[in-house]
Amino acid sequence: MARKNRTGCVGSAVLMALVAGLVAEGVALGQQEGRRRRPGAEARPIEMTPDQVAQLTRLANERRLNFDDLLSSAKTFMPSGRHDDYVLFSSGGQSGQVYAIGVPSMRLLRSIAVFTPESWQGYGFAGDQDPVIESLKIDGKLVGWGDTHHPALSETKGEYDGQFLFIGDKANARVAVIDLRDWETKQIVKNPLTISDHGAAFVTPDTDYVIEGGQYATVLGYGYAPPEEYKAKYRGMVTLWKFDRARGRIDEKSSFALELPPYWQDLADAGKGASDGYFFVNSFNVEMASGGVERGQPPFEAGASKRDMDYLHIVDWKKAERAFKAGKAKTINGFPVLTIETSIAEGLLYFAPEPKSPHGVDVTPCGKYMVVAGKLDPHVTVYSIEKVKRAIESKAYSGTDDYGIPVLNFDAVKEAQVELGLGPLHTQFDDKGYAYTSLFLDSAVARWALGGDYAKLHKDQPWKLVTKTPVQYNIGHLSAAEGDTVSPDGKYLVSMSKWSVDRFITTGPLLPQNFQLLDIGAPGTAMPVIYDMPFPVGEPHYCQMIKADKLKSWEVYPQIGWNPHTQALDPRAPKKGEEGVTREGNKVLVKMTAIRSHFFPEHVEVNEGDVVTWRITALESTKDATHGFCIGAYNINLSLEPGEFQEFTFTADRPGTYPFYCTEFCSALHLEMMGYLHVKPKSLATGEAGR
Amino acid sequence: MARKNRTGCVGSAVLMALVAGLVAEGVALGQQEGRRRRPGAEARPIEMTPDQVAQLTRLANERRLNFDDLLSSAKTFMPSGRHDDYVLFSSGGQSGQVYAIGVPSMRLLRSIAVFTPESWQGYGFAGDQDPVIESLKIDGKLVGWGDTHHPALSETKGEYDGQFLFIGDKANARVAVIDLRDWETKQIVKNPLTISDHGAAFVTPDTDYVIEGGQYATVLGYGYAPPEEYKAKYRGMVTLWKFDRARGRIDEKSSFALELPPYWQDLADAGKGASDGYFFVNSFNVEMASGGVERGQPPFEAGASKRDMDYLHIVDWKKAERAFKAGKAKTINGFPVLTIETSIAEGLLYFAPEPKSPHGVDVTPCGKYMVVAGKLDPHVTVYSIEKVKRAIESKAYSGTDDYGIPVLNFDAVKEAQVELGLGPLHTQFDDKGYAYTSLFLDSAVARWALGGDYAKLHKDQPWKLVTKTPVQYNIGHLSAAEGDTVSPDGKYLVSMSKWSVDRFITTGPLLPQNFQLLDIGAPGTAMPVIYDMPFPVGEPHYCQMIKADKLKSWEVYPQIGWNPHTQALDPRAPKKGEEGVTREGNKVLVKMTAIRSHFFPEHVEVNEGDVVTWRITALESTKDATHGFCIGAYNINLSLEPGEFQEFTFTADRPGTYPFYCTEFCSALHLEMMGYLHVKPKSLATGEAGR
Repeated sequence: MARKNRTGCVGSAVLMALVAGLVAEGVALGQQEGRRRRPGAEARPIEMTPDQVAQLTRLANERRLNFDDLLSSAKTFMPSGRHDDYVLFSSGGQSGQVYAIGVPSMRLLRSIAVFTPESWQGYGFAGDQDPVIESLKIDGKLVGWGDTHHPALSETKGEYDGQFLFIGDKANARVAVIDLRDWETKQIVKNPLTISDHGAAFVTPDTDYVIEGGQYATVLGYGYAPPEEYKAKYRGMVTLWKFDRARGRIDEKSSFALELPPYWQDLADAGKGASDGYFFVNSFNVEMASGGVERGQPPFEAGASKRDMDYLHIVDWKKAERAFKAGKAKTINGFPVLTIETSIAEGLLYFAPEPKSPHGVDVTPCGKYMVVAGKLDPHVTVYSIEKVKRAIESKAYSGTDDYGIPVLNFDAVKEAQVELGLGPLHTQFDDKGYAYTSLFLDSAVARWALGGDYAKLHKDQPWKLVTKTPVQYNIGHLSAAEGDTVSPDGKYLVSMSKWSVDRFITTGPLLPQNFQLLDIGAPGTAMPVIYDMPFPVGEPHYCQMIKADKLKSWEVYPQIGWNPHTQALDPRAPKKGEEGVTREGNKVLVKMTAIRSHFFPEHVEVNEGDVVTWRITALESTKDATHGFCIGAYNINLSLEPGEFQEFTFTADRPGTYPFYCTEFCSALHLEMMGYLHVKPKSLATGEAGR
Repeated sequence: MARKNRTGCVGSAVLMALVAGLVAEGVALGQQEGRRRRPGAEARPIEMTPDQVAQLTRLANERRLNFDDLLSSAKTFMPSGRHDDYVLFSSGGQSGQVYAIGVPSMRLLRSIAVFTPESWQGYGFAGDQDPVIESLKIDGKLVGWGDTHHPALSETKGEYDGQFLFIGDKANARVAVIDLRDWETKQIVKNPLTISDHGAAFVTPDTDYVIEGGQYATVLGYGYAPPEEYKAKYRGMVTLWKFDRARGRIDEKSSFALELPPYWQDLADAGKGASDGYFFVNSFNVEMASGGVERGQPPFEAGASKRDMDYLHIVDWKKAERAFKAGKAKTINGFPVLTIETSIAEGLLYFAPEPKSPHGVDVTPCGKYMVVAGKLDPHVTVYSIEKVKRAIESKAYSGTDDYGIPVLNFDAVKEAQVELGLGPLHTQFDDKGYAYTSLFLDSAVARWALGGDYAKLHKDQPWKLVTKTPVQYNIGHLSAAEGDTVSPDGKYLVSMSKWSVDRFITTGPLLPQNFQLLDIGAPGTAMPVIYDMPFPVGEPHYCQMIKADKLKSWEVYPQIGWNPHTQALDPRAPKKGEEGVTREGNKVLVKMTAIRSHFFPEHVEVNEGDVVTWRITALESTKDATHGFCIGAYNINLSLEPGEFQEFTFTADRPGTYPFYCTEFCSALHLEMMGYLHVKPKSLATGEAGR
């Protein structure tokens, strides 16, 4: 032990070295210890002694747990340091963000800022020309939130590949690209045609395209028309965003859209296997109700639900791509659009009747069947892609819609209808030939047996309900392990229950949602709810569950000076020894480095009115050695992850002496990791160079 | 069952009624069922059969759980519908928010937006004159994030009363008031003296004052001075914000501050019981190091750690209040400040030496002792308030500091020093006479035995380490059940471990923190970690844990038309039947109601350039029947909780036809709960009234 003084303190120089060493050493030791304690490969099978059984029973009784509770707890508990088997990427709904949740523990692992500026991640708090803020502007004005709906993991041959995540913003018709190497949003594209979307994002089996289906019809290209002109001027759309995997970006110039009738397009799914080359979009309000309760019209909720059937949109996207590449698109608001007439002429767009007001259209893993769940019909309707192809070939139409689009004969394309219960919304699949459908009004998850090729996988009657599990309450979507791939895993299913009501402590009038984990791998027909997770940060719409070991995330940035916006080493990143402050006229350039536990330089002196460009490199290369950087009262906060480079610019328009400091607790001397920005008032300024 | 058509759909009029009824009924049924299934008073003691033991053992072995894991899982699992025993209110660090977590399940229950606009809660997305955005401005410019540090629950007689929560913003020296009836931020006050704070917020035992201690010294009142003038012109401060409980607001006009030397004030705690009337603030950098590594000076981390002792600030706040009320404050930037000279003259400010670079000062439940943990000293130092009072009375000074403040003789005020380990930061207490101190460098929680009156509560040697539990990794603060009150509960303690490193799946270079739950009520000396919770939304600093049944939160707003900003019924709230759109010149007033599943009106027609004031009342009175309201591309999103009234104003500067819709999944016909804002382009506008 180092020399102590009378109060027991160790001497300061000695201690400084000790502290610096211990921070590194402490973590290293901790990691070793953690690994030792992690119940991993070396875990030996246990057998409970009678004393242990008595101890566990006593504890269960003290906590009023029954045996099923003990089973559920043992199915979901993760010992310290043990990693979850799956990651559930969830939309955060109108929070604008994406959240990652571990399964089976249902622990929230990370938020990922997407459409809403978020300061922990330093997302949107990097000064006057922040690329995040720029990417969130629509026509030059910040729209700083989103209504995230459908996360879609990138796929290779129909399997999640763990590389990218896409998500749509229903409120503003935008699509974001998240890179799963560093879990950061890299791109936001604004749909130039429409205001709102819904079926976004869905990917084709090799992620050639990211599909964005519309929602509420409007005048394409941000146009105006009063409600009287609904049928004539309002239109729906679906956009095919071309994805450039090598660049990790949507290629806007190679993207295009299809004009659609002003039905409200809803969920979408891409074909795969037998249906590869197609995608499917639900619609409702084929009534083209335009509301007007204030003028004595039926409200949208009634007007849009009058007819018995809406239209499943069937799109041959490979044909559409050829038509686009052949120059057959016209331009609306600068964006190429295949008109309804062109789509009809090219034979790339067909409708099939579907029971009223459907929500989900979900393609079975083999791609042979499309399952439509219509919330006002107690059945799900199953379509066969073979029958669809045959009906198209043989022109088995029951007519056309008002815009001339051929409507396939319902009986010619229908494979089965399965009665499940009230309010079916969305369907997922497992590895044993079963489908799972959410029942909103019943507040239940239905398991039902698939037919056709799937019948050999189980002993149940094909196309038939098997069992239901009640959920609490009003389930919207559900998500099964690898449930949207060509090879789902079964095991786990999450019920995204919309109302939690009494499930948790009353958190004021605004309550969390309830994500409930169902054990769908349990023996027998039971599929019990084994965990209730309050979802406390938005009203999420959908999520996808990927095997955790498919994610190959970076632990630190690949090189010191990495720019996460470009995903490349940035030549502008200050290196150790290059730090300093220079000036040209009223432009000041600050070159700074950050390492435990100081910034270099510690004082930056500028004049009021200077335009300051500030570059910081985090010199750390140790996992979890993140620094923050903020300037008080200047609305600036960065997250400087190991190796990261950031640049920000601002006008020093407020005189005064402002502390800057590290906002991420990085070491024992974290509080001392600070400095001052001195903005000399105009009244005192001499024009001397920043220093 | 209603009449079915050929596709199995029920007829539309019948179905509409059915759906409306079922939504209500479904929830009511669900609630009943939930209550039945909730393992509550009716739960019968279980005894495990040999088959059940075998089943549980098999499951444990499949999941590689050992017996301790089974115990931990049974200690933390909450069956569906069972409510947690405690709520942990946690700072969200540089996310700017507060988060509520259930204990023992460690489930995140709710986010509460405070310093950062958040769209799920509709916080800061209510148009051009949003009161939230206004409250976040500093000198007219939005500072839309914060670095939340210390949540403080309101207290009555030293007990948490569950009414209010206060929290400071370290980055911008602000304090927020959250009302725990509706879990919403009601007020943000900006400290007019300084840029950064740290010891905020702490309350006096009856919440007379909310204390905001400073952090980095600067020129008070947003002044400027270069680093050379550090000692002469930089100052610290502590502010006493007067809380008006009846109004639920800080009364800025009755608040005042104390000028302090430019040491970096750190954590604070209010006296109670024996020390009622005092509060205590730590400091570091009494060296008055001003950094300058870029000029060859020692960096702050070294310069601020040179001396062996810093100063514990002891403030007699009742005397300070009297001095303030007697008009002895001078004004800086419009705010009353007791100068150092006045504080000395009035005998209300004393220093006691404390081992170098302390972090926490924590008053024991009885109020007799103050425990200081200094990260560079392996001991905690315990001070006696009786000794302090005696030393003040007898003028047992060892001298004064550079500013003339009397420094009490260390040996005269010290009760004990207890060696615990490396990097002690912060201390909490239980009901059995023990204290718990976080050890940052050791990555451990130390339990040690209190002495004095507490010695009779246990059989351990007083003022002595009892045991340590390793945590993963680098614990900052810790929080025990009711741990800051006059009567802590013991039972649970949360270690806020700053680094998680390998504990969870790698979530890119930015990792969650690790909140670890320790069972401090376990028999014997063991206090095992029983849960690892990733904290995924910021780097939280501190949290407080309150008994859940102390919270008397509203399930819905008390009356239809409630304005949460004023916490009162708002006469402007449109009632059912009053809906409509009116115009005066270019000013349009929209009166709207919202109820499952439509807005009234559904069309709002305005002219480009109109200034639109839009009022919405949520007519719902059912728990969890929340609606959202957004206008696409206009950056507007509201959360309309049952009974809530909201008003927003914007300029209709973008022509076009914009859907608005409900952003919270409210019913089976939620997607149909929409309408259109038609902004007629100037080229077409005729000046007709909005309709």
